[in-house]
Amino acid sequence: MPTEAAQARVRVKADDLRALVAGIFAARGTREADAAAVADALVWANLRGIDSHGVSRVPRYIELFEAGEAVADAVPTVTRPRAAIAIVDAHAAPGPVAMNSAADEAVAAARECGIGWASVRGTVHTGAIGYYTSRVAGARMAAVGVVAGVPNMAYAGARGAAVATSPLSVAVPAGRHELVLLDMATAVIALGRIAQLKAAGKELPPGAALTRDGDPTTDPALAAVPVPVGGPKGSGMSLVFELLASGLTANPIVPGYHFGGKDGRRHRQNAFILAIDVSAFLPLAEFTAAVDETVDAIKSLPPADGTAEILIPGERGRRSEAERRSAGIPLGARAWRELTDLAAALGVTVPEPIGG
Amino acid sequence: MPTEAAQARVRVKADDLRALVAGIFAARGTREADAAAVADALVWANLRGIDSHGVSRVPRYIELFEAGEAVADAVPTVTRPRAAIAIVDAHAAPGPVAMNSAADEAVAAARECGIGWASVRGTVHTGAIGYYTSRVAGARMAAVGVVAGVPNMAYAGARGAAVATSPLSVAVPAGRHELVLLDMATAVIALGRIAQLKAAGKELPPGAALTRDGDPTTDPALAAVPVPVGGPKGSGMSLVFELLASGLTANPIVPGYHFGGKDGRRHRQNAFILAIDVSAFLPLAEFTAAVDETVDAIKSLPPADGTAEILIPGERGRRSEAERRSAGIPLGARAWRELTDLAAALGVTVPEPIGG
Repeated sequence: MPTEAAQARVRVKADDLRALVAGIFAARGTREADAAAVADALVWANLRGIDSHGVSRVPRYIELFEAGEAVADAVPTVTRPRAAIAIVDAHAAPGPVAMNSAADEAVAAARECGIGWASVRGTVHTGAIGYYTSRVAGARMAAVGVVAGVPNMAYAGARGAAVATSPLSVAVPAGRHELVLLDMATAVIALGRIAQLKAAGKELPPGAALTRDGDPTTDPALAAVPVPVGGPKGSGMSLVFELLASGLTANPIVPGYHFGGKDGRRHRQNAFILAIDVSAFLPLAEFTAAVDETVDAIKSLPPADGTAEILIPGERGRRSEAERRSAGIPLGARAWRELTDLAAALGVTVPEPIGG
Repeated sequence: MPTEAAQARVRVKADDLRALVAGIFAARGTREADAAAVADALVWANLRGIDSHGVSRVPRYIELFEAGEAVADAVPTVTRPRAAIAIVDAHAAPGPVAMNSAADEAVAAARECGIGWASVRGTVHTGAIGYYTSRVAGARMAAVGVVAGVPNMAYAGARGAAVATSPLSVAVPAGRHELVLLDMATAVIALGRIAQLKAAGKELPPGAALTRDGDPTTDPALAAVPVPVGGPKGSGMSLVFELLASGLTANPIVPGYHFGGKDGRRHRQNAFILAIDVSAFLPLAEFTAAVDETVDAIKSLPPADGTAEILIPGERGRRSEAERRSAGIPLGARAWRELTDLAAALGVTVPEPIGG
């Protein structure tokens, strides 16, 4: 059986990969700046080691453009019904275009009111939600982000896919330390991770996924539905995230999925981003010093048996980013072939990989 | 070994229990209205079946008053540094006094700005956080609430208590259906639940708790530290909740706990409540109709093997409330004796239990 390492056939420089992806989107009609934004969000996921949310998704965006379920050159519209809230209607624009707009709206509202909330209605493939909370943190604010989508995860006590693996991200700026960045699915295991383990011929951890019939399995070929983290806790979080992300944008996804209708299973996502202007509460330096001390306290704890080092949320991703910025981003043979085929068909220059 | 049911020696009417608890707090110097507020929050937890956060905590409040770590008649002070945010300094007032104030501040800010955030600094024993998000929902708003406290839960990869079992509550108002009310600890199992299983002579589920030495155990007598739900997900949530609840109120708990200092292990809590004025986003009736349809969709799913009925967050608690409102609140012999001893010492009238 092939190993995971054997799947990584090429390494590509982050800048080259960004240019390739931006070129593909621009050639499909996305505005230059928006194409660059999509490329940056996807390559960021690869840099951080979240390959399931990276450039391997490009062909899927293109399919959605072809099917009319996503609109390559859509320009999101923004309303600000009250001082601290914005609603970004994506009009089926690619996720990063709508989500960047939401992050910026949330920051602007927070600067004025102390906190700011932006809801996103009807986008597609947002990618890694931590990208957008990190964007808010770039303004030295804390952030919370949630995405809701089409059901693909079990709900405690129910059979089959019931709710989405809706991720939660929280970003908290530090001082001496790097950004504390939680970015987690409400599922025990991500669908992308199941696909990776399948490709690598490895078993799933027990208790992570169910078959299509609702039976527990560790065989990635049979695993159809990830299990919510903590049973009713994970599925409860996913449910309330759907109610807040989709309910507040008048675009519910779960009922249509289960009760049918023409849009029932069409891919679409809603989201929200909350920005918290730390400096409205206390001097920023006092806050970031407290974050630093808290991080120091956790990292200095005695490690559990079998643990070499205690990690803070975001730390693993940052190490991946440092390594991949210098050594290039590893891509599986299939992902690379799909990208280069698309590029060739659209007349986009394909960069030279830097190694295998 | 005694069973759990055998521990419940008396049943007391909710109104009687409320009057008893309010009488105890008032006799210890808490203002009448605040004493009634504390009693209502604690009895609500018992009604909802969250006995670990109910009236059994009364003796602990009294101990904290004696030790000067809580202040019976403290009046929280409120600042509103920007339009959408408030900071409630509890001055060591009992949790419900400070948290009710925060919920009301969050609602007032949300009415003006679309969303409102209230941070709570330096309170004690907030009780069940779902009580306060429900209070916000009473204003037909959605709410998010978080409490941070002294470390009592493991952190993924570390030995011993590292972070708190910091709970998250999300309340979403519905139409035909009752309030959707998620109220979860970031731990697999609550400390109060471990104590209940110990009293009942029952084993813990595997993977829920560690011994003081960091070894997994199912023996409630040896279980010292609950495990975070989903490993790094639960402990990551707890960490960022501490950074937001305690960091924004300039009152960090985790570093002092681990690095020492006079206040290191003193009981204290910080919190925040976010109120979301649904009607600022869309007509309330449209939102609650979407919530109803989503609840209908989940409840109509085929149940998994061994599941009789699929439950929505808050549903189990509401059933407990209905049953206990009519049949009375069951209290263990020890909890009842502690309450009645306190009442006798303070000259507070003890109500007649309605049965055993």
